[in-house]
Amino acid sequence: MLEGLVYPGDVRVDVEKLRALGLRALAAVGVPEEQARMTVDVLLCSDLRGIESHGFARFADFYVYRARDGLLNLDPNIAVVADEPSAATIDGDGALGFVPSTIAMRLAIEKARATGVGMVSVRNSTHHGPASPYALMALDEGMIGIAMTTGGVAVAPPGGAKRVYGLNALAFCAPCRPPGPAFCLDMATSVVAAGKLEIARRRGQPVPEGWAVDSEGLPVSDPNVYYQTLGAILPLGGDAAHGAWKGFGLGVMVDVLTGILSAGRSSAELPSRGANHFFGALRIDAFTTLESFYAQMEAMQQTFKAAPRLPDTGPLTFPGEPEAAKETNYRRHGIPYHTSVLAGLRAMCETLGIEYDLE
Amino acid sequence: MLEGLVYPGDVRVDVEKLRALGLRALAAVGVPEEQARMTVDVLLCSDLRGIESHGFARFADFYVYRARDGLLNLDPNIAVVADEPSAATIDGDGALGFVPSTIAMRLAIEKARATGVGMVSVRNSTHHGPASPYALMALDEGMIGIAMTTGGVAVAPPGGAKRVYGLNALAFCAPCRPPGPAFCLDMATSVVAAGKLEIARRRGQPVPEGWAVDSEGLPVSDPNVYYQTLGAILPLGGDAAHGAWKGFGLGVMVDVLTGILSAGRSSAELPSRGANHFFGALRIDAFTTLESFYAQMEAMQQTFKAAPRLPDTGPLTFPGEPEAAKETNYRRHGIPYHTSVLAGLRAMCETLGIEYDLE
Repeated sequence: MLEGLVYPGDVRVDVEKLRALGLRALAAVGVPEEQARMTVDVLLCSDLRGIESHGFARFADFYVYRARDGLLNLDPNIAVVADEPSAATIDGDGALGFVPSTIAMRLAIEKARATGVGMVSVRNSTHHGPASPYALMALDEGMIGIAMTTGGVAVAPPGGAKRVYGLNALAFCAPCRPPGPAFCLDMATSVVAAGKLEIARRRGQPVPEGWAVDSEGLPVSDPNVYYQTLGAILPLGGDAAHGAWKGFGLGVMVDVLTGILSAGRSSAELPSRGANHFFGALRIDAFTTLESFYAQMEAMQQTFKAAPRLPDTGPLTFPGEPEAAKETNYRRHGIPYHTSVLAGLRAMCETLGIEYDLE
Repeated sequence: MLEGLVYPGDVRVDVEKLRALGLRALAAVGVPEEQARMTVDVLLCSDLRGIESHGFARFADFYVYRARDGLLNLDPNIAVVADEPSAATIDGDGALGFVPSTIAMRLAIEKARATGVGMVSVRNSTHHGPASPYALMALDEGMIGIAMTTGGVAVAPPGGAKRVYGLNALAFCAPCRPPGPAFCLDMATSVVAAGKLEIARRRGQPVPEGWAVDSEGLPVSDPNVYYQTLGAILPLGGDAAHGAWKGFGLGVMVDVLTGILSAGRSSAELPSRGANHFFGALRIDAFTTLESFYAQMEAMQQTFKAAPRLPDTGPLTFPGEPEAAKETNYRRHGIPYHTSVLAGLRAMCETLGIEYDLE
């Protein structure tokens, strides 16, 4: 399960040093402290769980420089614009996405505490990192957590020749008996997230056929071609015979719950840095006892793990298991980063005139 | 969009004749009238929308003979065993699955009317047809509808050599401005539903590689091999490089919400005719105005439809569009059935000693 935990040449970075650097950088560009803490918490959760495509690798370009350049509203009026016992809509007012998202997930949890279920749709936000850190917030409350977000426009619908809609993602997390790892599904509704192409490009590796096409709709194996031609990533399922309409449908589902339900518009129509989100919490003891839930999660996992495997395949891992193993390891030994990510953070610190102390 | 609407040799059957035959058959095996109406309504909805794998093709074997043979509880005590303002769990007491499912979806709608969102998990049920007819019940109420169900055990997890868990399905339906067709995603979390292999076998057609494997984990193209060897269907995504863990994760998500949240056990552990379900409703005007929702659904669809297509692909259809077109056509001209389906219904009528008048 720990295979691929650290790539050769990667450098381990202490979590608390990274947290401090993150807060320093955000303070340097004028992000208020509470907003900065929400941001850094989510990015650390991402990197600790090995979602390296969505963590500090994007810190400078996606958040720090955009804050510095006035592209994010650092004094937002984040408003609950619709509010019922188990439903709400929040307007993010162009804030750093981590902020309305954290507020919205907390509100969903609060509503689930009162009524059993809480669902909150968020419009007029910006990129908020990966979805699972928000969904995971529900677990300590004895709840199932759900989080969805629009992503950048990069996906072609089945039969489409161009990117039309977003790399829409959804996370679904359910607790297992502590200290066992939670079930945590965090997936783009495309075959892969764009971050996977970014990683392949960074590491100089080809990508499998069926991930992406160029601007003519032809298959791509060199990730640079995808970027140079403004190609498109395919919906989960890949082609019509293998369920591409399902990945497409799931992508539209995310757009309906995030953008259309909040009156924030679908990903196909958002400005390039805009984003919409959706958060849900289901209180388990509103449906059954937590003890029964834990016992049945265990029983299910044991049944799966006892089943025969194909030759040359390792043991089955559930979504969330590899991520939990990484978190344990990385908390103790530091988070491994590709040297290009650290070079980017060093350059950012120089640009901002703040201390860089990660290596 | 109407391509493939009717296969050569199929016979058109009048909807009301089919409804009457369905009610006659269920009455003949002792199903009370209200239960029979719920059953026939869902099966007709399925066939009217072209979900031919889940409608009257299975009527005799899945429902009528099981009712006759005492495998279904026709006098069930369907109980709400947990109840909070926006959450509930229902015990189906081994009833014909259409009955607890219809009751549960109505309860989810009632809760959404009161609080904005309603979610109901159902245990101890049986096969209830496809998921979308339940999700669609929410739309006339100005709500988004969600339905999930476990299916028969037929799917291997990524790297697995044997079928372990169910053909778990989920439906997500959202209204568009009438009379436009609703958005209606209804998908197995596997590459295909088992019904698609049934159809290929019935029609003597091979299936594409990537749908299923035999009992040794080798690819299957003859659907008979899948059935003869007790093979396995693959999770949506197919293989590890193309996101099979996503299809697997979605399948587990359905198990968590249907079976584990209701204390009904996961699909991997259910007796062969057992099933669990999950239903949800989100009242749109608890989040935004219905007018805004309709307008943004329209805008999204127009953006998609205006985008360039690959050569030799038709116009983009959204999940729900082909189904709505079929429903319009079939209501007027009758539902087309393969002659083997009608032969099965004729034989069933002879067995039960009731009139057969479909041809």
